[in-house]
Amino acid sequence: MHELGRKAREASAWVAKADTGLKNKALLAIAAELETARPALRQANAVDLENGRSRGLDAALLDRLELTDARIDTMIENLNQVASLPDPVGTIDDLKYVPSGIQVGKMRVPLGVIGIIYESRPNVTIEAASLCLKSGNAVILRGGSESIASNQAIAQCIQKGLAAIGLPEAAVQVVETTDRQAVGTLISIPEYVDVIVPRGGKGLIERISRDARVPVIKHLDGICHVYIDDLADREKAVAIAVNAKTHRYGVCNAMETLLVNRAVAADWLPELAQRYQEIGVELRGCSEVCDLIPDALAATEDDWQTEYLAPVLSIKVVGDMGEAIRHINRYGSHHTDSIITESYTRGRDFLREVDSSSVMINASTRFADGFEYGLGAEIGISTDKIHARGPVGLEGLTSQKYVVLGDGHIRK
Amino acid sequence: MHELGRKAREASAWVAKADTGLKNKALLAIAAELETARPALRQANAVDLENGRSRGLDAALLDRLELTDARIDTMIENLNQVASLPDPVGTIDDLKYVPSGIQVGKMRVPLGVIGIIYESRPNVTIEAASLCLKSGNAVILRGGSESIASNQAIAQCIQKGLAAIGLPEAAVQVVETTDRQAVGTLISIPEYVDVIVPRGGKGLIERISRDARVPVIKHLDGICHVYIDDLADREKAVAIAVNAKTHRYGVCNAMETLLVNRAVAADWLPELAQRYQEIGVELRGCSEVCDLIPDALAATEDDWQTEYLAPVLSIKVVGDMGEAIRHINRYGSHHTDSIITESYTRGRDFLREVDSSSVMINASTRFADGFEYGLGAEIGISTDKIHARGPVGLEGLTSQKYVVLGDGHIRK
Repeated sequence: MHELGRKAREASAWVAKADTGLKNKALLAIAAELETARPALRQANAVDLENGRSRGLDAALLDRLELTDARIDTMIENLNQVASLPDPVGTIDDLKYVPSGIQVGKMRVPLGVIGIIYESRPNVTIEAASLCLKSGNAVILRGGSESIASNQAIAQCIQKGLAAIGLPEAAVQVVETTDRQAVGTLISIPEYVDVIVPRGGKGLIERISRDARVPVIKHLDGICHVYIDDLADREKAVAIAVNAKTHRYGVCNAMETLLVNRAVAADWLPELAQRYQEIGVELRGCSEVCDLIPDALAATEDDWQTEYLAPVLSIKVVGDMGEAIRHINRYGSHHTDSIITESYTRGRDFLREVDSSSVMINASTRFADGFEYGLGAEIGISTDKIHARGPVGLEGLTSQKYVVLGDGHIRK
Repeated sequence: MHELGRKAREASAWVAKADTGLKNKALLAIAAELETARPALRQANAVDLENGRSRGLDAALLDRLELTDARIDTMIENLNQVASLPDPVGTIDDLKYVPSGIQVGKMRVPLGVIGIIYESRPNVTIEAASLCLKSGNAVILRGGSESIASNQAIAQCIQKGLAAIGLPEAAVQVVETTDRQAVGTLISIPEYVDVIVPRGGKGLIERISRDARVPVIKHLDGICHVYIDDLADREKAVAIAVNAKTHRYGVCNAMETLLVNRAVAADWLPELAQRYQEIGVELRGCSEVCDLIPDALAATEDDWQTEYLAPVLSIKVVGDMGEAIRHINRYGSHHTDSIITESYTRGRDFLREVDSSSVMINASTRFADGFEYGLGAEIGISTDKIHARGPVGLEGLTSQKYVVLGDGHIRK
């Protein structure tokens, strides 16, 4: 791992200064290699699937593992798309003269070497590599042991693409061992790795955050809320509450708790409950909710802090927006929360006071997504407070250094 | 410490939503309290000085510890100045419509609770408290044991000022114990503390970075370089090389290594050496330098990675700008580096390729400073790569969350 790190550090200087055209060519060259290597990719993937079956992986995991032709299409499409995104590297902002006569500005620069630790889906290899490359970073990828053959095959395409363009192959390295110790080392070498992005289950992310000696950009829970204010438009409230919960269940930006203002609860909740029950969502509520919805189960303290990722919803009646905000800031995961209201003043206050990476007015929490936000791509959604919050795109993989232009200026 | 943390977390919600006028009033109220408390501050400081003397602290440390009337003036001036700075909190950038019809933007928000760990100078208590407060954060301050009485006296002024304006006193807390364990706890409670800013010697900062379970914004070394290109203007080169080394020695943005292009070394170095020797700077050089400057000592590998903070300078002759950049990126501390050149192309490349928090053309490294950059204040200079690089002002104590404005929008 130290050797991998050393090579990545060396390569990072080359990627950092590669111009936009060169990086785009490399991305397209990798896409061409994937196209050519379809049979090899399917073959390598078959080995992983076979091993997975014999190790008794469940059907959902095997499905995520599979590299169908459609998924290879998506990887190629992904490379094309990242190539078409604007390059953040080198952008200079706020360059201005200060009283001493020097000009001071900020230049956007790559972070250096990024370590990505992820689980089963092999297409993450391409997603992560393309974003790191475009943002001028070298990357060390450590995928799940169950997808090792597929990842190696993808890695070969990447290396060939880089070599064809004359970029160092060490700009993208895939860890070849499934040894757990490799992860322990990767997250402990700040001299070679500048930031770690873990993608996977909560257990993985908690373990990495606890042990890392390198900064981590992470996403823990997605306990998202919709608060229906008494000054809400009823139609918008119902549409958003249904969409935020039921559009997709297993995603981090799905609503897990619905907060409803007492003034409209008796009138609106029965209709909403019926909509949820038609779709098959289990409802758990506070005592007031249980009085209004006979089929709802009683919610426990645990329910307010659970990311169900399933057709289950907890519902609580609150007295006013202040109570809703306190509930969100206390039980939520600082991910995405939305207020439904027609009140200008309440919307204004909600935006400021809710301490989450995405705060919304009259929109479904399902919009919290790099593509929907126009970032063009996303490497993950950060629930951290420093560096980047919310969907992390190319810019989140860079930082800004100061540039100073003088003409022989000295400090007096 | 956990109780302190809990109270800070609670207070942080109030400071975060306090409007600019209220925060400014609090800063001015604290200034008024300091003015009134001058005798009490001097008295408390006398206790620290007395203890310091009996513990045998050296003269330099005792000097840093002393709260003269002029230093109290500076603290008051500091509060006035921070009150006059623009408030970054709540600023919304890049709010725009995206194809789905929602508007997406980024709002600047406080980090939450900041822990500051610092050494002897008691005026840091005011500097840090004022910046954290203005940027909407709660803060826990942990000063050096040698300044505990002074810090407590300053803390009382802060508490009174906050109370007078109706802000929670827990918005600024000064740890009352000198117990080392308190630091260990402060840096291990991510549930209460969002970021740690250590200010002090390298030993302190390394220890904290190693043990922290909370993100750290830190400044390690300042091994700054000036590279004199063969296309430099001789007068500017000499002026900047002298200024960067000799303007002040004990500061992180002083030059520690001078790199000189071979084409001008023989001609220019003797003049430069004479200037340095007149001022009393010890020179250590590579073999070529030693040939040109008879009095120079031979530099060892260690010299290239030493922050002297003293009238000592290492000098190396390089073949071209590429060699200079490789030396800087390898031996430097990614703090501040400057090229002296009249070449447009070399200046352009140097800015992009040097991986430091401040990169300069034709200016003294001594300009790397929050005040010189127009930030109005600085809590420190970050040599980290994520979140903030270089001088960290109010903006560095905030991050950005996404705000989404819709009109009943749902994901299709």
